[in-house]
Amino acid sequence: MAEQRNPDFEQAVRASFAAQPLMATIGARLTRVAAGEIEIRVPFRPDLTQQHGFLHAGVVTSALDSACGYAAFSLMPAGAGVLTLEFKTNLLAPARGQELIARGRVVRAGRTITVCQAEASMVVDGAEKSVATMLTTIMTVRDRPDIVG
Amino acid sequence: MAEQRNPDFEQAVRASFAAQPLMATIGARLTRVAAGEIEIRVPFRPDLTQQHGFLHAGVVTSALDSACGYAAFSLMPAGAGVLTLEFKTNLLAPARGQELIARGRVVRAGRTITVCQAEASMVVDGAEKSVATMLTTIMTVRDRPDIVG
Amino acid sequence: MAEQRNPDFEQAVRASFAAQPLMATIGARLTRVAAGEIEIRVPFRPDLTQQHGFLHAGVVTSALDSACGYAAFSLMPAGAGVLTLEFKTNLLAPARGQELIARGRVVRAGRTITVCQAEASMVVDGAEKSVATMLTTIMTVRDRPDIVG
Amino acid sequence: MAEQRNPDFEQAVRASFAAQPLMATIGARLTRVAAGEIEIRVPFRPDLTQQHGFLHAGVVTSALDSACGYAAFSLMPAGAGVLTLEFKTNLLAPARGQELIARGRVVRAGRTITVCQAEASMVVDGAEKSVATMLTTIMTVRDRPDIVG
Repeated sequence: MAEQRNPDFEQAVRASFAAQPLMATIGARLTRVAAGEIEIRVPFRPDLTQQHGFLHAGVVTSALDSACGYAAFSLMPAGAGVLTLEFKTNLLAPARGQELIARGRVVRAGRTITVCQAEASMVVDGAEKSVATMLTTIMTVRDRPDIVG
Repeated sequence: MAEQRNPDFEQAVRASFAAQPLMATIGARLTRVAAGEIEIRVPFRPDLTQQHGFLHAGVVTSALDSACGYAAFSLMPAGAGVLTLEFKTNLLAPARGQELIARGRVVRAGRTITVCQAEASMVVDGAEKSVATMLTTIMTVRDRPDIVG
Repeated sequence: MAEQRNPDFEQAVRASFAAQPLMATIGARLTRVAAGEIEIRVPFRPDLTQQHGFLHAGVVTSALDSACGYAAFSLMPAGAGVLTLEFKTNLLAPARGQELIARGRVVRAGRTITVCQAEASMVVDGAEKSVATMLTTIMTVRDRPDIVG
Repeated sequence: MAEQRNPDFEQAVRASFAAQPLMATIGARLTRVAAGEIEIRVPFRPDLTQQHGFLHAGVVTSALDSACGYAAFSLMPAGAGVLTLEFKTNLLAPARGQELIARGRVVRAGRTITVCQAEASMVVDGAEKSVATMLTTIMTVRDRPDIVG
């Protein structure tokens, strides 16, 4: 009944991340890939901020969404596609500091639906400060050649 | 009891939008400012996409979040600051096409809390196709010099 | 490609609603069934309230969730099951008054995923006052004998 | 700057819970009160179910919402009122079993805004099975005589 998980999941995640142009545009790096757990880091840049000088919530969400999507994707069978259905982000504190760290993990992986959770922190003078949390619903897509990876 | 709404809200919204570097980075333009209603447009660019070639959900969310934030801000008293507490985005269809249009509007404006709703569409060969919807909670901040606008 | 919608959807919705014991427990009535649109009413009762004397958010959510679930179900093929994946509720005002009205409607109906939106109002001296809004993601379930209707 | 937390928070939580008629209506019991952490249990009852025989999502949400609300309230100053602004619930599995356990905890407590997270499990033959997760935004209300507790 259970499908075989992709034994090459790390390579599949890294290849798909590399194929997301937005990640390069915002300077995001994939800093950890494990089964069901992903970490992405985005160094602070002034051109990614909002009007108060903090990282824009859209940038924080970009990193959280990719972290959750790849956490889900890491548990999917080879050849599947990953599609985010929805996410909710709570902003806990202004995103100021030297670097954003987004860590996503799978809460429940079903055949069709995966629920993930993620935390975002800012590195401020070497210490991490929590700035946002995400809860998201992701779908495993099969047999759609336009949505693979 | 009710505070005076800012008579110069349009100018305040435009000034704050211009002070969001991320909006320039993703090529977003403020195309409509009315009391409680904001429209933002983002032309498609390959460097804003995810792995299937659609606009990344983080870009769609950046535009939706700014549209909602400024819709709320347009009804706030002069000198207030706008802070997004949380948002939820449902992705309805792949964001492919020539231009993203995000339209935010105020659902309920209270003294401290404003609830906004927004729709995102893609322009595909001249027609609009709905691609996402957002529901968000925003706070009016007073007496915080670091959060004005 | 498109499946046939259930021509007997109204009967199917009414039968499933009647099979939800919680609806009777809270005194909920199904007051409108249309394709993609459902209305449920719950008269105010002191035993459904929270500590300030308003209807408990859980009661408001019960009505909103059922209204959205049946709005989605009304567009599904015969024999399908309806499963709510997640919902978000914004509480806009205290739920005080004589009767709660929850109106759900389909925003987008796909083969597997349906997104619905709902509004809750309280009838106060004959006028309706908006008290909550919901955005939800619902799945069409096939070939699961334990989840039909 | 920080306000004094209510030294009698446990008594305040228990009194407010006892003043929520809905909790008695659904048979909910307050089984743990700690600073920032609340547990509520609801024994399974057929009159609380939906059409497939599982506990209705509205009942699960009622318990999760109260657990989060009181987790937040337990950290508020004496005399404050607790108001839920919004919540999002992901349903992870059908709520079948002998008893529902909802555990809420504070993720971040600010002067005005508190973010809470909660998990719901069902006890099935002595073991716990996760069935839902909630993320919610709660406001501390001051100087409103109609909203205390």
